[in-house]
Amino acid sequence: MENGFAGHLITVYPARMDIKTYLTQKRSDIGEHLAGLAAEYTASLEPAASSAHSVMERILEFSVSGKMIRGALVFLGHSLFSSCAAPEIVDAACAMELFQSGLLIHDDIMDRDTTRRGMPTIHMQYMEECAALGSRESGRAGEALGVCAGDICFFLGHEALSRATTASSARFGAPSSLGAYCSRELAMVGLAQMKDVEWGLTPQFPSTEDIIRMYRHKTARYTFSMPLAAGAILASRPESIGILEAIGERIGIVFQIRDDELGLFATECELGKPVGSDIREGKKTLYYIELMQKSDPAERQTLSAIFGNQLCTSTDIEYVRSRIIDLGIKEEMNKRTELLCGEADHLIESLAGNSSLNPESYSLLTELAGYATHRSY
Amino acid sequence: MENGFAGHLITVYPARMDIKTYLTQKRSDIGEHLAGLAAEYTASLEPAASSAHSVMERILEFSVSGKMIRGALVFLGHSLFSSCAAPEIVDAACAMELFQSGLLIHDDIMDRDTTRRGMPTIHMQYMEECAALGSRESGRAGEALGVCAGDICFFLGHEALSRATTASSARFGAPSSLGAYCSRELAMVGLAQMKDVEWGLTPQFPSTEDIIRMYRHKTARYTFSMPLAAGAILASRPESIGILEAIGERIGIVFQIRDDELGLFATECELGKPVGSDIREGKKTLYYIELMQKSDPAERQTLSAIFGNQLCTSTDIEYVRSRIIDLGIKEEMNKRTELLCGEADHLIESLAGNSSLNPESYSLLTELAGYATHRSY
Repeated sequence: MENGFAGHLITVYPARMDIKTYLTQKRSDIGEHLAGLAAEYTASLEPAASSAHSVMERILEFSVSGKMIRGALVFLGHSLFSSCAAPEIVDAACAMELFQSGLLIHDDIMDRDTTRRGMPTIHMQYMEECAALGSRESGRAGEALGVCAGDICFFLGHEALSRATTASSARFGAPSSLGAYCSRELAMVGLAQMKDVEWGLTPQFPSTEDIIRMYRHKTARYTFSMPLAAGAILASRPESIGILEAIGERIGIVFQIRDDELGLFATECELGKPVGSDIREGKKTLYYIELMQKSDPAERQTLSAIFGNQLCTSTDIEYVRSRIIDLGIKEEMNKRTELLCGEADHLIESLAGNSSLNPESYSLLTELAGYATHRSY
Repeated sequence: MENGFAGHLITVYPARMDIKTYLTQKRSDIGEHLAGLAAEYTASLEPAASSAHSVMERILEFSVSGKMIRGALVFLGHSLFSSCAAPEIVDAACAMELFQSGLLIHDDIMDRDTTRRGMPTIHMQYMEECAALGSRESGRAGEALGVCAGDICFFLGHEALSRATTASSARFGAPSSLGAYCSRELAMVGLAQMKDVEWGLTPQFPSTEDIIRMYRHKTARYTFSMPLAAGAILASRPESIGILEAIGERIGIVFQIRDDELGLFATECELGKPVGSDIREGKKTLYYIELMQKSDPAERQTLSAIFGNQLCTSTDIEYVRSRIIDLGIKEEMNKRTELLCGEADHLIESLAGNSSLNPESYSLLTELAGYATHRSY
């Protein structure tokens, strides 16, 4: 009897979904909707060029091979406040993923990365295609076509976002600030990216605070705050934007620090791209800044010859790794991320204190910081 | 008495404004509003990076030094149907100019142009700045920062467009399609630009029809159809989009052919950039295609050695010019533009037949084809 009752319970109330399962499920929903959008865009862009089909196919393949965290977080942000599914949510989620594709395509050109998500980067794909057509300047052609493909992602992302904004305005009978809000956040991403480029390619030495500020706007707000806030806007809860932004900033900085850590310590297989690309690129990550600050002048000179050297060896990378551990920097980063996770937890609690939240979504939100801390690629 | 009466008339009803005066006046209005927007954006982007001020200043300087035809045409499209000035019109006009800045900044990187509007292109400005900071890779840094600056223009353009869309939705109490409409048109510009890049950098030989299609989407619809249609959408006259698009396509192709002609025949002083850059770049313009088709194999070989050769001389450019004239290609282009202008005139007449238009704006619209045909830089 007890057994039967328990069995019944299990059927009616399945085990609460964890954040990883949630993200995987939303990834699949968003991917499906993106495929539909891509088919629609192909049909409407066809008059401009017969290549519309192949360009959209490439953008779709690239977009759906990501983890689509940003898109999923629009759903999460919305479901905190509302249990009704509105079609504009998935449009906004697709917009986030198209923006992300555009930014990554441009980023890979700037960083000269050749591999992303286990396949050639978009500009490398175009380079190969132009070389096959007999171009004498295939490298340049690949980069130019990559810039255009990224631009197209932005425009189509805004198309999807405009749709979501319009549908939301109609639903609530009041103008929605969604489009303007996201556009301004994206402009901040662009500014933070410029800082990242400058620090990578000019002999400037940013402070820890400079780097944290760059992380906040290039990654944290964009990856966590903006999608969560977009969800809240679509649930007509603009008063919750501020606290979701604050939560997202903390979780997002943790996410970026974990990204840096994976870039330094993960294997090529885990990364889907060559090990040590941040080192070869001379990226001014938080690890780099701390490492330089804690090293003596002789060590600093050795490290300077490794960072930014496209030809640095696996021995060089191993040396950097061991210095990071020996100087206690990895330990320090763990403390920093714990602190940020604690702050995020407090903010999440205060969010719950102020609003009646969907308990399932609230539970997922509480898991997000842990996910950012421990995620693999 | 007659004299006094005439004098009175002149004061009360000033001579009807011509299109050039109209464009100049709107340019000044849009420039002023853009400066206000830039100040507002600077303040709100400041948290992302202290460089917000200098980046916005650079974008503003670049944007206001253009002719701002696209922005002005939003006003014209709106005023055809409505005599009330709405603040969202100038926001939409600024959006068009920010999009144009973004596209030009990226275009200049792709074409490796060093001068635009009489000043260094944006990526060259950044290159110089990074070189001054001691960058060993200033060329690459300049291009990367240029890509980011272009992206920021797109995002801020969409911010302004979202604002206009929201205001318009509120005014008419119905969702506006403005944001989605413009985003999709911009995606088409991106696709057409990709064709332009491919034809320039790979050994493909497009047909006259291919080139016209590319002109239609890269220039004509974007420069004329989209802004005029945007104005109509803001006047809540979506049923006029189709005919304004058709008018814009014709005038816009004329505009592009004139652009090609100026690129071939104008002096450096008139152009604000070095003479023959389209030739050096190997751009597949309509002139180029016709020239190749009309030349015999020996001539074609001579021309092939000139087009796409970065080191071609002023004698080479003079040779290309004389062949274009001697083969009757310039004459043929004149006929083609006359035909297109005639079609535009008919369409404009039929527009007047279907709607009660503001006579002053209608008169300006009829002058637009003539302006596109005869404009100088």
